[in-house]
Amino acid sequence: MAKLKVVLAYSGGLDTSIILKWLQTEYDAEVVTFTADLGQGEEVEPARRKAELLGVKPENIFIEDVQEEFVRDFVFPMFRANTVYEGQYLLGTSIARPLIAKRQIEIARQVGADAVCHGATGKGNDQVRFELGYYALEPDIRVIAPWREWEFASREQLIDFAEKNQIPIAKDKRGESPFSIDANLLHSSSEGKVLEDPSQEAPEYVHQRTISPEDAPDTPTEITIDFERGDPVAIDGVSLSPAALLTRLNELGRDNGIGRLDLVENRFVGMKSRGVYETPGGTILLAAHRGIESITLDGGAMHLKDSLMPRYASLIYNGFWFAPEREMLQALIDQSQEMVSGRVTMKLYKGNATVIGRESAYSLYDEDLVTFEEGSGSYDQRDAAGFIRLNALRLRIAAQRKKKLQIQ
Amino acid sequence: MAKLKVVLAYSGGLDTSIILKWLQTEYDAEVVTFTADLGQGEEVEPARRKAELLGVKPENIFIEDVQEEFVRDFVFPMFRANTVYEGQYLLGTSIARPLIAKRQIEIARQVGADAVCHGATGKGNDQVRFELGYYALEPDIRVIAPWREWEFASREQLIDFAEKNQIPIAKDKRGESPFSIDANLLHSSSEGKVLEDPSQEAPEYVHQRTISPEDAPDTPTEITIDFERGDPVAIDGVSLSPAALLTRLNELGRDNGIGRLDLVENRFVGMKSRGVYETPGGTILLAAHRGIESITLDGGAMHLKDSLMPRYASLIYNGFWFAPEREMLQALIDQSQEMVSGRVTMKLYKGNATVIGRESAYSLYDEDLVTFEEGSGSYDQRDAAGFIRLNALRLRIAAQRKKKLQIQ
Amino acid sequence: MAKLKVVLAYSGGLDTSIILKWLQTEYDAEVVTFTADLGQGEEVEPARRKAELLGVKPENIFIEDVQEEFVRDFVFPMFRANTVYEGQYLLGTSIARPLIAKRQIEIARQVGADAVCHGATGKGNDQVRFELGYYALEPDIRVIAPWREWEFASREQLIDFAEKNQIPIAKDKRGESPFSIDANLLHSSSEGKVLEDPSQEAPEYVHQRTISPEDAPDTPTEITIDFERGDPVAIDGVSLSPAALLTRLNELGRDNGIGRLDLVENRFVGMKSRGVYETPGGTILLAAHRGIESITLDGGAMHLKDSLMPRYASLIYNGFWFAPEREMLQALIDQSQEMVSGRVTMKLYKGNATVIGRESAYSLYDEDLVTFEEGSGSYDQRDAAGFIRLNALRLRIAAQRKKKLQIQ
Amino acid sequence: MAKLKVVLAYSGGLDTSIILKWLQTEYDAEVVTFTADLGQGEEVEPARRKAELLGVKPENIFIEDVQEEFVRDFVFPMFRANTVYEGQYLLGTSIARPLIAKRQIEIARQVGADAVCHGATGKGNDQVRFELGYYALEPDIRVIAPWREWEFASREQLIDFAEKNQIPIAKDKRGESPFSIDANLLHSSSEGKVLEDPSQEAPEYVHQRTISPEDAPDTPTEITIDFERGDPVAIDGVSLSPAALLTRLNELGRDNGIGRLDLVENRFVGMKSRGVYETPGGTILLAAHRGIESITLDGGAMHLKDSLMPRYASLIYNGFWFAPEREMLQALIDQSQEMVSGRVTMKLYKGNATVIGRESAYSLYDEDLVTFEEGSGSYDQRDAAGFIRLNALRLRIAAQRKKKLQIQ
Repeated sequence: MAKLKVVLAYSGGLDTSIILKWLQTEYDAEVVTFTADLGQGEEVEPARRKAELLGVKPENIFIEDVQEEFVRDFVFPMFRANTVYEGQYLLGTSIARPLIAKRQIEIARQVGADAVCHGATGKGNDQVRFELGYYALEPDIRVIAPWREWEFASREQLIDFAEKNQIPIAKDKRGESPFSIDANLLHSSSEGKVLEDPSQEAPEYVHQRTISPEDAPDTPTEITIDFERGDPVAIDGVSLSPAALLTRLNELGRDNGIGRLDLVENRFVGMKSRGVYETPGGTILLAAHRGIESITLDGGAMHLKDSLMPRYASLIYNGFWFAPEREMLQALIDQSQEMVSGRVTMKLYKGNATVIGRESAYSLYDEDLVTFEEGSGSYDQRDAAGFIRLNALRLRIAAQRKKKLQIQ
Repeated sequence: MAKLKVVLAYSGGLDTSIILKWLQTEYDAEVVTFTADLGQGEEVEPARRKAELLGVKPENIFIEDVQEEFVRDFVFPMFRANTVYEGQYLLGTSIARPLIAKRQIEIARQVGADAVCHGATGKGNDQVRFELGYYALEPDIRVIAPWREWEFASREQLIDFAEKNQIPIAKDKRGESPFSIDANLLHSSSEGKVLEDPSQEAPEYVHQRTISPEDAPDTPTEITIDFERGDPVAIDGVSLSPAALLTRLNELGRDNGIGRLDLVENRFVGMKSRGVYETPGGTILLAAHRGIESITLDGGAMHLKDSLMPRYASLIYNGFWFAPEREMLQALIDQSQEMVSGRVTMKLYKGNATVIGRESAYSLYDEDLVTFEEGSGSYDQRDAAGFIRLNALRLRIAAQRKKKLQIQ
Repeated sequence: MAKLKVVLAYSGGLDTSIILKWLQTEYDAEVVTFTADLGQGEEVEPARRKAELLGVKPENIFIEDVQEEFVRDFVFPMFRANTVYEGQYLLGTSIARPLIAKRQIEIARQVGADAVCHGATGKGNDQVRFELGYYALEPDIRVIAPWREWEFASREQLIDFAEKNQIPIAKDKRGESPFSIDANLLHSSSEGKVLEDPSQEAPEYVHQRTISPEDAPDTPTEITIDFERGDPVAIDGVSLSPAALLTRLNELGRDNGIGRLDLVENRFVGMKSRGVYETPGGTILLAAHRGIESITLDGGAMHLKDSLMPRYASLIYNGFWFAPEREMLQALIDQSQEMVSGRVTMKLYKGNATVIGRESAYSLYDEDLVTFEEGSGSYDQRDAAGFIRLNALRLRIAAQRKKKLQIQ
Repeated sequence: MAKLKVVLAYSGGLDTSIILKWLQTEYDAEVVTFTADLGQGEEVEPARRKAELLGVKPENIFIEDVQEEFVRDFVFPMFRANTVYEGQYLLGTSIARPLIAKRQIEIARQVGADAVCHGATGKGNDQVRFELGYYALEPDIRVIAPWREWEFASREQLIDFAEKNQIPIAKDKRGESPFSIDANLLHSSSEGKVLEDPSQEAPEYVHQRTISPEDAPDTPTEITIDFERGDPVAIDGVSLSPAALLTRLNELGRDNGIGRLDLVENRFVGMKSRGVYETPGGTILLAAHRGIESITLDGGAMHLKDSLMPRYASLIYNGFWFAPEREMLQALIDQSQEMVSGRVTMKLYKGNATVIGRESAYSLYDEDLVTFEEGSGSYDQRDAAGFIRLNALRLRIAAQRKKKLQIQ
């Protein structure tokens, strides 16, 4: 009988190394590793040597820089909707999972693998996001979720297993880390342990990607961001690729203490959890995108988008990126962005990312119309009387009913 | 024939004084003035003398402090929904208009007036908000909107009329002001003239209620806010009435450069306009309310609220406070707030209002459930497998269809 | 150690009798039976003897007529929203489950039981509805779902078990029935087996509660239905209790071939299934309720309700009756019904339930306003000009932009 | 100065003939007539002679058969969304107005006209639909709405004017008609006069397009309808053009008494009105489209569509066909229809249009999955346990809170 062949989402770290070995020992599996550079800020090449050390064949090691695809095809489409989950969270972790799932499935097809495997735990959202992605793209794929399956009951047992299997353990990984981290080009998240009491302020040291507002410079930084069809294309007039642009915004955000969020959120699996998120560039981008929309997007279009955004955000948060209803909403959103082009000027200062100017060849803002003087324009103040009276009509009829009933 | 009797929303300023006189001369009306202290930061008593000077009978002068009613019955209910218009605006002007309209109608009934009158222009939203309020409460009331009716074509003509009618004109009112202001306990807004080009940064001097983040102290201020059933009731443990509490939050916000917003928005009457808003206390309150909800409100309840908020915000912005659908949404929102009680700790620093802690006897956050360890609790990680597989089922069936069609 | 005590939703039929015995043998449980008369059209008292025969103690047998509670507290509130799932289904099964779950939990508290048990299969929606109800009301209750747990792999094995355990088997139950049925006062549903091919017409014999339109009388029946605050209270002027009223509507519907539905629907568990539903009285009631709303409910209120109905319907369909968001929506809906009172005249004829007249002391319909003549009323046709021009303003500005761009 | 040139939507009937003459006399205008064959069931060629008689130049007379465009580009896109206004109305009048407005504007450009004119009254929705269409397509067009402008105060005065201007008056038009009619290939509507009392049944004689269910044949008619990408393409296997297909459905509907609706609705201008609508083919089409979607459309996609349909319907009803938010919704809807192809079998009988079968090569219905037997398939009943428990988790946590609070 042929060996089980498994494509593992492999970071090169201790936990996924343990999983790698566990797949070999427990399933007698041929493991294929996929290591993605999503801009997490760690080098990915060392993962090759680690995988080789653990006995993965060279042709089974896949290491890829997917930053451009990540930003262009996942981050930017999401930002077109001004997406925030529960009013605040910029979905930095959620939006990366579908891309990893997609590449794992593509590699599985390429190498003829039977199964895919991820290192997400059984209490979080990421297991859902990975697995909904797998199933949506390859309905009969076998999914292995070690954290839900294995018998290890404590950190010690995991370390034991690692030691027995000659998995190198960095000194600082021997004990439990005081919190867990996820990172990519859009954000870093921290959760667990020292953050588990939501009444206690998050310690400064959990922050990975930003300096604190207090430590940021005392003078503001001013930048311009150019948009085309809803996506940012240039900073200070310099055209940049999607990933390069987000990288630059991240630097600007980091240096000005922008993009920190301390949040208790509702997980798809039904519990509340507390996370500390840092999305420096994304926070600037959200404000800037709203800024350019404010002059280029029709009011009716904006209100429709805004009313659907919470649903769109939940779909992404819950892992339904590849679901038809997410694609339908994307079609609606993208349709609205055709003329969302122009330039926004922003001031960055100690945690604040403020729009201070916006201009566009596609502007719907009409100074002549809005001026306090009558203007030359298409607006006749007398029209407002009829507008109000007809809008009031049903309210008046209801009020007349009320009066009639009171008299009786 | 009896004289027309009109209840005028009277600020005591030049514009409404002109309107007062115009009603007397143009309509030969008996004018009743209503001057509300909404916390705009100007004394209201001087309006009495001015009205008297313009010939209003003492019994026709109504001056009232409505700050507590304003905050308790209008501002707080709105904040229960985390209401923002177009993603950002805290609706400080919109929420005050229904209260003024309501009091004008009540006074009209009391004094037996035939008509009501306001000083809003024919291009803005306020005319709509006033008049929808009037009509919803008194369907057959006569509404006079001088700015849409009179023949004055310029500022000079208004000043001429004022001079001819012995209306005192403050020196700085003789020319046109560089922008126009509305203020109440929740916010100040500035718009027009120097703000009409949205590509240009708003000058520092338009700000009325806040110092700039740059001028704010270099050390953060920490406060606690206590909530009961969705409304704030105490700051730093000290119980305060609604208006006193908002006043205190305003001071805290002002001193820390919090709550400025420079926005191009879509008016109900169909045009885009640019406003600069300052909502110092409200900005803190919004963040704090989200903070207490994050641990006390069920996820399903929160998502329902969030998805309806844009509609609720538009209703208020457009002047439909007294419409049945606003009341229906309020019933839904209020129902959700029963257990939104507890304490939020906030850090205020140079424009940032950040939640750093939340605690509540009604908390739904369960540390035991969320911990990385298995926990003693009600969560079995193996349940996640079934949860995911059934959530994936329809995606898998669709993917199977796709494969089948590709083969054919 | 004390015996496990289980409250079983017991119909008295073969399947739940097998479950009863299985609980006794497999769990060594003390079984408490709950048999509800929901208007399913079968006598419930025989269940007592059957339970006794299977060794249930007399004090552990609960048989109750819950028809009035069912209609008053579950069916009528749902109909206030004009609730249909996927555009068509009147939710007859879904709405009964929460009541059964609630009573099981109440009985469990009363008798000190540890667990509850239902006879729904592992592929359907009912298991979800029962269990979400249990958990929402008693979070730590133990739930036993035999169809997901036991080892029986075929109908034969079930029959074997029944025979070995002296469970009486009606002759026609020995083989598999050609389809499965659920019934209560609101509806009957049929699904499975002969209905599993959705391309084939449902056989006439699956229908339980209605004659076919073809067999219905050749002359129409006319009735009136009176409403108070959104609920029906009288037929043809005769006041009736909720259950009596629905019973009478069922007779009228049955006799006129009204309320059949053949539907492929999306189950919460992710698959499509085909059902044949008969909701004779409910179909009449839905049309009548829309009829009385059409003259008594404000347009804005109606549109808000209509836009939320699909979400409300999904919540009920998916088993979230006791979830806070269902209760929030109910608060919104109930708020709208305050003046939904009056009389509707309906014509029933061969499958059609048609509103032919509506009248109400609370009517918002104003003949004087709507007449083609100018009318004496509050409507000035000239107001429409301003109304249209301001509604058009943003469209015009966008069109001007388009023209400007074409020229360039 | 050049003469005003006006494109009039001209039916050839008395009212628009009066308008034609009034434009010539009142405005001294050069009138261009546009007469559309929308399938209203009256010949349009006679309009040519009438226009000529009234002095319109031959090159200014435009008569066009737009039935195919009407059905293909307006009716079918709308039916993809299963669109009904206020739960019932199939929008037959609303959907025709944008097409007429669009052609008027195109003709105005072609002939160099300055203005457009329609014959809708000042109380209805049609004036809004026409004029929003005009303005959205040609922002600076001049709009003439005679019913809102002229001084005629009664039917008599109109007839006088007609007589004075040699406009031929059909005998039956001399008095007021007992109700007013609008018709096109999708529907006929009747309103006014004899229909103005909503408590009174609509007389049989107001119906234009259908026989009554009572008069329909005693035996059912069975047909099949084939769909491709959400649109019907064939009846009984015979491919038909859009207009031909709707024509055929209309005949089938008419002969079986299908598609009558007696409704009190909420007009955009704020009043309630009563209409009798006949949409024979559309009623069949709506049921059939839901039928084919039921097996080919994913549940999540369907629920998203359903939840947005009321908003989409209101946009069309209110005249916003050319607004960006309607186009955004259309993009979302169209995206969902890619695989909505297959065949529906329907039974037509005395007012009932019932789906009795559906089949498709794109079906998502899986008999193997849904069967009561375990099936070979991808569904493991044990998965349901985890699915339910995680869906229940937040309900359990809330219930635990409630218990804890009760104990305290």
